[in-house]
Amino acid sequence: MSEVAAETSGGQRRRRRRRGGGDAGGPATPPRSEAYRKLTNPYTPVKALSDDQIAHIHETALRVHEELGIRVLLPEARELFAAAGAKISGDRMVHLDRDLIARALETAPSTITLKGGADHREQTLGGNSMTFMPIGGPPHINTLDHGKRPGTFEDLKLMFRLCQHFDVIHALSPSVEPQDLANELRHLDVTRAQMTLSDKPPFVYARGTPQVHDCFEIIRLARGLSEDEFRATAYAYTVINSNSPRQLDIPMCQGLIDFARAGQITVMSPFTLSGAMAPVTMAGAQMLQHAEALAGITLSQLANPGAPVVYGSFTSNVDMKSGAPAFGTPEYIKGSFVAGQLARHIGLPWRSSNANASNAADEQAVYESMNSIWAATLGGANILYHCAGWLEGGLTSSPEKLVMDVEALQIMAEAFQPLDASDDAIGFEALREVEPGGHFFAASHTMSRYETAFYPPILSDWSNFGQWTENGGVRTYERANTVWKQALDAYEQPTLDSGASDAVDAFVDRRTSEGGAHPES
Amino acid sequence: MSEVAAETSGGQRRRRRRRGGGDAGGPATPPRSEAYRKLTNPYTPVKALSDDQIAHIHETALRVHEELGIRVLLPEARELFAAAGAKISGDRMVHLDRDLIARALETAPSTITLKGGADHREQTLGGNSMTFMPIGGPPHINTLDHGKRPGTFEDLKLMFRLCQHFDVIHALSPSVEPQDLANELRHLDVTRAQMTLSDKPPFVYARGTPQVHDCFEIIRLARGLSEDEFRATAYAYTVINSNSPRQLDIPMCQGLIDFARAGQITVMSPFTLSGAMAPVTMAGAQMLQHAEALAGITLSQLANPGAPVVYGSFTSNVDMKSGAPAFGTPEYIKGSFVAGQLARHIGLPWRSSNANASNAADEQAVYESMNSIWAATLGGANILYHCAGWLEGGLTSSPEKLVMDVEALQIMAEAFQPLDASDDAIGFEALREVEPGGHFFAASHTMSRYETAFYPPILSDWSNFGQWTENGGVRTYERANTVWKQALDAYEQPTLDSGASDAVDAFVDRRTSEGGAHPES
Repeated sequence: MSEVAAETSGGQRRRRRRRGGGDAGGPATPPRSEAYRKLTNPYTPVKALSDDQIAHIHETALRVHEELGIRVLLPEARELFAAAGAKISGDRMVHLDRDLIARALETAPSTITLKGGADHREQTLGGNSMTFMPIGGPPHINTLDHGKRPGTFEDLKLMFRLCQHFDVIHALSPSVEPQDLANELRHLDVTRAQMTLSDKPPFVYARGTPQVHDCFEIIRLARGLSEDEFRATAYAYTVINSNSPRQLDIPMCQGLIDFARAGQITVMSPFTLSGAMAPVTMAGAQMLQHAEALAGITLSQLANPGAPVVYGSFTSNVDMKSGAPAFGTPEYIKGSFVAGQLARHIGLPWRSSNANASNAADEQAVYESMNSIWAATLGGANILYHCAGWLEGGLTSSPEKLVMDVEALQIMAEAFQPLDASDDAIGFEALREVEPGGHFFAASHTMSRYETAFYPPILSDWSNFGQWTENGGVRTYERANTVWKQALDAYEQPTLDSGASDAVDAFVDRRTSEGGAHPES
Repeated sequence: MSEVAAETSGGQRRRRRRRGGGDAGGPATPPRSEAYRKLTNPYTPVKALSDDQIAHIHETALRVHEELGIRVLLPEARELFAAAGAKISGDRMVHLDRDLIARALETAPSTITLKGGADHREQTLGGNSMTFMPIGGPPHINTLDHGKRPGTFEDLKLMFRLCQHFDVIHALSPSVEPQDLANELRHLDVTRAQMTLSDKPPFVYARGTPQVHDCFEIIRLARGLSEDEFRATAYAYTVINSNSPRQLDIPMCQGLIDFARAGQITVMSPFTLSGAMAPVTMAGAQMLQHAEALAGITLSQLANPGAPVVYGSFTSNVDMKSGAPAFGTPEYIKGSFVAGQLARHIGLPWRSSNANASNAADEQAVYESMNSIWAATLGGANILYHCAGWLEGGLTSSPEKLVMDVEALQIMAEAFQPLDASDDAIGFEALREVEPGGHFFAASHTMSRYETAFYPPILSDWSNFGQWTENGGVRTYERANTVWKQALDAYEQPTLDSGASDAVDAFVDRRTSEGGAHPES
């Protein structure tokens, strides 16, 4: 009755009836979560520019390196660049020539394996694969229960448990900053928590070599690896932004070098906000992003040829009235398509984001996020970072928003599954079973399939208005609060080998008693 | 500071500052609404199946007509089919052969012009064009102010005014059913209201020939056309569903014939809900949709070869626990891509929908809608029907949801605008202007562009959390209520020529005094 002509045809009311099998209240469809662990995107990536235009942006970025250069603050990084033939001038300005960049792009792998604590947690980054990594970096958390406040270690562990619970989230990330932990010890507790609360690949902050090495050691011990085994395969990842425009700061250079030498993944993501730290044109912001990404990628390959590095894009526009970042905008959509084209142009895996600028987990947060998710997905992203839980331009983590995002991601994961177009699915014989004007509820074609035919949502409420009202008329935001609490109840902590667990504890205890390591900046 | 490495690099806080020009509080960016009136989708449509698989679904639909047939309830329609060589059997069963269908597809136009009351309202249906048509058919309306209740004529006029106000909505539709108007007079008042409150193309219900002819006459008089001029070009459209599976009811057959003979547009949209009125497989539901659409298209071409008819898809799945329709699901997404492929396979314009099943204008409504919008857009739809204002599977109209949808549609319309990849936009010289680590706020490249560089939202709030909280912490749903009231204040009624207006009034008065015309079913 929702369509206008259903009104036209009067007596022909659309049938809604309850199935016998579903009356018990339990889900009629068994869990199909296995399908969410490794995702392949079957759709041809959308292009916003021609291949020639993309090549021209790449060419212009090479000119930026040759004619303008970038400022590199870390002496060791300048020495690596200089030893490879780069010209150093003025105030720490480095000029990469196109051959040096081309050699780096030859050694950077097009496909990367990222391992977790179980075989089924392994992710492939590159090709047609798509990996969902949750929100990273917010100082605050906001829930329906207590509103917005600074994050704590308990909050972070909550987010780790939720990210472990939902199979469609494929890794961990620092999903809220534990501000109650001392700066010099935080990395130890956070990395141990990732290893004990989850078997998904962990994130490590690049906040100076001592912290990075501590974290790598915890992961190596937890995974029961020799030092050579750890260096041979990626078990961790980090995200590094440049100080746009055209500057690589000390900790980010150090991080690129440290991760490359350890064989761990750097997602090299310039934060080129169009109109603020980047040109006010999307083509210009993308060109700057590309130039800066090429610098980081080249540094990683000079530190260790073949090191795993991902082309990260994080370009959006600002509100020109206030300078505040905006996300999920039309400029963001087009920029995402271009970023994917640029990544494929140089043959590297591409990271995009699920971003929004809303202050609340509300309708704006959702439509901006959905634009971000679709632009990344149809643009052919290999990593969707900040995939779940992000609010307020990344300043705040939200468990309710995480549930909304998980629903959206599961829908996308299901949309990736091939559509069965066999003769049996096309169903000529099924049509023969049902009289004109009849229904398919009881058809054998339906009965043999209905339990697993459709995606069962975790958040959407499809009851009719009367039932919904009787049940309290609960809006989606409030239902999301219930869903994450149910997920927390259903969370199962993975088992860490007791020897590994003891080794991790002993290491963390020792490093704690030694005073840990202060972050570098 | 939203990205993790912005945390890493410590002191490098992201800059947010107010621009001088924007402090006055007015919009820094002038209106750019002209760009929303005629939209061209630049993106290559996404495919969910191979061309061979699509051809096989088409072939199977032809077999359905030849071997199973469809039931046609209107004698005149059966006579038209029989006269063209179709075999009639059993209980009003009609068997179309593939040659008859092929001839219809040859005469059906691939591109259709739909005219309004002003040149800039003209829409092209077909090719790469995309037309947004608002919600049609809901019996109820739901606003933040009064909750859900039966629709009235005043409510419908409110929706007409809102649809007229926003340029991104390209036509009118019966956006809520005026249940306070008598059945036999409703079509007269509603059509007159469309002509006087808006200059966008109107919708006419196919509820029997007398009503249809009344409505056509009102439109002809309002537009100042001769009968021949009216018949030569489309000035109105209707949507017709089949009684799936495989049945064409009396009023829908009559509508197809009436609209074809008058040269007005039928959007032939089988409502094939997978698992209910259609097979539980998406390929099967699409195949049934295709077969039924072909029947309607063929009837229109037999009634008047060359008549404008659109391939409408309205296939989704049901909740297998309750039988309730679901929208914006993964099945809906894949089905939309397939529907677009089927429409292009037969060379007709394709209509999709912006649908959701939420009982409230909330986050679920938005993520389901966004899936529908993106699946239609990336699938290459020519018409997005129910583009704005739809809730609850189409049972309810919502002005707040209309505003959320308008924001989403305007973002999409902006994402259709070509990305400037000129050398000036790529901005090598702009980079030269700004020191490493600096910003582009004051760069000449920025100053000459910033006022029109980015899309200015109508609903999104990009203020920071402190400002947002100071301003009351208003969530998006509540802001949408304010926005539609502002739009209503800003609404300008178009001028109808006084002669035309008098002629319309005289006609409506006469037909009212004659008792109008009862709907047929």
